[in-house]
Amino acid sequence: MTRSPEDPILLTPGPLTTAIETRRAMLRDWGSRDRAFIAMTAELRQRLLDVAHGGTSHVAIPLQGSGTFIVEAAIATLLRPADKLLVLVNGAYGERMVEIARRLGRSVEALRWPEDRPVDPAKLDRALAADPKITHIALVHCETTSGLLNPLEPVAEVVADHGRALILDAMSSFGVLPIDLSTTKVAAVLASSNKGLEGVPGLGFALVERATIVAAKGNSPSLSFDLHDQWRGFEGNGQWRFTPPVQVVAALVEALRLLEAEGGAPARLRRYQDNFDTLAEGMARLGFHLFLDPEEQAPIIATFHPLDDPHFAFDRFYTALAARGFLIYPGKLTKAESFRIGCIGALGRADFEALLVAVEEALGELRR
Amino acid sequence: MTRSPEDPILLTPGPLTTAIETRRAMLRDWGSRDRAFIAMTAELRQRLLDVAHGGTSHVAIPLQGSGTFIVEAAIATLLRPADKLLVLVNGAYGERMVEIARRLGRSVEALRWPEDRPVDPAKLDRALAADPKITHIALVHCETTSGLLNPLEPVAEVVADHGRALILDAMSSFGVLPIDLSTTKVAAVLASSNKGLEGVPGLGFALVERATIVAAKGNSPSLSFDLHDQWRGFEGNGQWRFTPPVQVVAALVEALRLLEAEGGAPARLRRYQDNFDTLAEGMARLGFHLFLDPEEQAPIIATFHPLDDPHFAFDRFYTALAARGFLIYPGKLTKAESFRIGCIGALGRADFEALLVAVEEALGELRR
Ligand SMILES: Cc1ncc(COP(=O)(O)O)c(C=O)c1O
Ligand SMILES: Cc1ncc(COP(=O)(O)O)c(C=O)c1O
Repeated sequence: MTRSPEDPILLTPGPLTTAIETRRAMLRDWGSRDRAFIAMTAELRQRLLDVAHGGTSHVAIPLQGSGTFIVEAAIATLLRPADKLLVLVNGAYGERMVEIARRLGRSVEALRWPEDRPVDPAKLDRALAADPKITHIALVHCETTSGLLNPLEPVAEVVADHGRALILDAMSSFGVLPIDLSTTKVAAVLASSNKGLEGVPGLGFALVERATIVAAKGNSPSLSFDLHDQWRGFEGNGQWRFTPPVQVVAALVEALRLLEAEGGAPARLRRYQDNFDTLAEGMARLGFHLFLDPEEQAPIIATFHPLDDPHFAFDRFYTALAARGFLIYPGKLTKAESFRIGCIGALGRADFEALLVAVEEALGELRR
Repeated sequence: MTRSPEDPILLTPGPLTTAIETRRAMLRDWGSRDRAFIAMTAELRQRLLDVAHGGTSHVAIPLQGSGTFIVEAAIATLLRPADKLLVLVNGAYGERMVEIARRLGRSVEALRWPEDRPVDPAKLDRALAADPKITHIALVHCETTSGLLNPLEPVAEVVADHGRALILDAMSSFGVLPIDLSTTKVAAVLASSNKGLEGVPGLGFALVERATIVAAKGNSPSLSFDLHDQWRGFEGNGQWRFTPPVQVVAALVEALRLLEAEGGAPARLRRYQDNFDTLAEGMARLGFHLFLDPEEQAPIIATFHPLDDPHFAFDRFYTALAARGFLIYPGKLTKAESFRIGCIGALGRADFEALLVAVEEALGELRR
């Protein structure tokens, strides 16, 4: 793993630390309607499908913008005006889906759990039995709010049993946690360039079941977010409807090649798990407590309670770590005070060991 | 002007040829909520305002995604549900605004002119007098479909006289053609990173009158495209609501510094005019005719009729030029066959002289 030393180490859940090879892929200009870029777009779409074993069942639809944009585009495109969405909420990104659907004027309801509790498939089962109007269910795979892992396979099974469609926000899990579209029934998987795939931000994508996207013509009230039209564009002449962020695309293709070279999602999960374990053990030694129980914790992002010490203040802790080249992340929980440290990005155990040294120094500084 | 020699020369209206300094600004990672990036966002917003002399009257609201996204965001945010948009159409980008508004369920009408005729302010004046329901008027400053320059000041005057609001799509003119928000009344100017500003694609922005954006709360049916919320985010903590494309932002800030170093929009216009003149004279010598009359032509993109020669075929011409390192652009006119050559980007007269040599060689190849 090569990284230029001037860069701060980003321990944030995207943008995150990328490999220098990925950034170097942005050093040239690309004509967006030229053969070379059409070929790059095709490679991008194929590699995204391959990561989730979706090549025979799904199509890949990249979209300009941030992760929220692809979530909104999926809701706008896949729900017909009369459809109804049920969002399974245990964090801020679930809540965001509720707001998106409400703004769009779509019928939407939420089932809610506390921020430290995973979605319960049995409760979902009862909700679907009780309300036949619900056509789509939205689940956040890894709730980046806390780092909590939701039970994808059991939820997908319940949704399939009831003949409804599952929309999966896999923003921070894609390319890391197992998602196998050849065995798990998911209508649409949504993610972005700048988390587990270790690209730079600027691009989202949806992997959508072929029959689902074919049927979604004319649903979207937004031209820009119409994933059916976006897909037709790619299928027609291999080009993007609207100007693509060519350098961001080139970086993501490079990052996907690096993912393959590393050994794919299983290898990346092992590295992130090692990052997480190194971090969690070291922080425990320094007196920090994790917010989540180990069973609910994905090795993507760790949420810590503030240190139980009168000298501890997050702002000063952040600044002391930033001065040492490490950027951590504020908390996003509604109830508890907390802060977060990402375990994803082009980072390995040595980086987390270096971080732990910096944390110890920073605590010393705070206590002086 | 430095450019790495492996790159093809893009003679396309964005993505276009950027300076290597601009691309090099993408070689590092940025934490999107860190002080350094907050400062960069502030610099970006200030520089964008300065380009159009909007510092006292307007606010700058960058948005992730392509140029179409910022056009849609402006229509979604600035029109209340009961408002009515009149689009002045003489090309594909005007038509696109009509479609965006229609999809969003907003009341919309178009005044249309042929693709080689500028918008006529007198006709607009009559239309506004006849329909008091029209609240907003949309104009495309330079219609990139043909390269035609529409008369901004006379249109703005008519709109102001009728007390309506003007939305200006300045995608391909911003940073090049004069737009002075301190003397010309425009409610919102829309543009993107990757045309006259010579950044890389992935970002649009709106310069919106302060009172207009304050009043636009709650209009947008889209969370992602709500420019009022986006603006509040920047004003609140200096941060982006949703993950920004940090490298694209860094590149655009570098490109804006280069614009200032060049002497601002007037100097850039002179360079592009010289590019255009070099191109137009050389192409005329080789037998090509421009689609537009000189009075309607902006020095942004030149549309040519196909050569009146049985050996000429655009596809083969394109390929022969691409083999020589020059990427040109297909036409976009609805009626006439044509092709386009962009005059914008980090290019100067020598590049266009080299292009003309390549065109002559390519024609020789086609005639063989
Ligand atoms: C699970 C999840 N969903 C959605 C998003 C929104 O993505 P973005 O910030 O790129 O808009 C995030 C971002 O962290 C996320 O973690
Ligand atoms: C005048 C005008 N408006 C809108 C657009 C759309 O921009 P984008 O392709 O970035 O979506 C363009 C792009 O060329 C343009 O020239």
